[in-house]
Amino acid sequence: MTQNALLEKLDFKKGGGLIPVIVQDAKTKEILMQAYANRQAVELTLKTKKATYWSRSRNELWVKGETSGHTQKVVSVATDCDYDSLLYVVEQTGPACHTGEYTCFHKKII
Amino acid sequence: MTQNALLEKLDFKKGGGLIPVIVQDAKTKEILMQAYANRQAVELTLKTKKATYWSRSRNELWVKGETSGHTQKVVSVATDCDYDSLLYVVEQTGPACHTGEYTCFHKKII
Repeated sequence: MTQNALLEKLDFKKGGGLIPVIVQDAKTKEILMQAYANRQAVELTLKTKKATYWSRSRNELWVKGETSGHTQKVVSVATDCDYDSLLYVVEQTGPACHTGEYTCFHKKII
Repeated sequence: MTQNALLEKLDFKKGGGLIPVIVQDAKTKEILMQAYANRQAVELTLKTKKATYWSRSRNELWVKGETSGHTQKVVSVATDCDYDSLLYVVEQTGPACHTGEYTCFHKKII
């Protein structure tokens, strides 16, 4: 399927215009964070290769690292079998988490 | 923080009772799928170590592999800095995707 055909298939409806994005470190394969993207955020990510999301708390487009400098260079983007989830594989500069931790998933339950 | 304290902190409200769950292969570190869990699904997962989700399409609890045999033995569960996303690291039996593919994220956009 072409890139445009895949974009058209993305299912933004289920999530009220947003699709969850899993963010994985290209080098270590660790999960760095999980965020959300609307269609514009996905298009900007594909165009600029800078990981771009929709901030649900600020209600605006959010280029990761724009203020912190902890940018994410996107090396690949994939969607899943039912087109309602995205995976960004990135080269992370600095920590991914705003707390200063390497990954946002630093709270182990088991 | 204790396991119970972490469970109490999980933010099910933002997602209308559901939290997205990222599922990662313990051996290869590939992302296998992304699903959703309500509180009961998380509690069952912690108790049984069988990855349990909430199926949005069938509107019911869903023990992965219960019908297909493609079960997921959970080796760790973590939440993120704002408690609104979960990561299950699993030992996958057979393919994770209902299409027969190893991972649900087999549709590459870039």
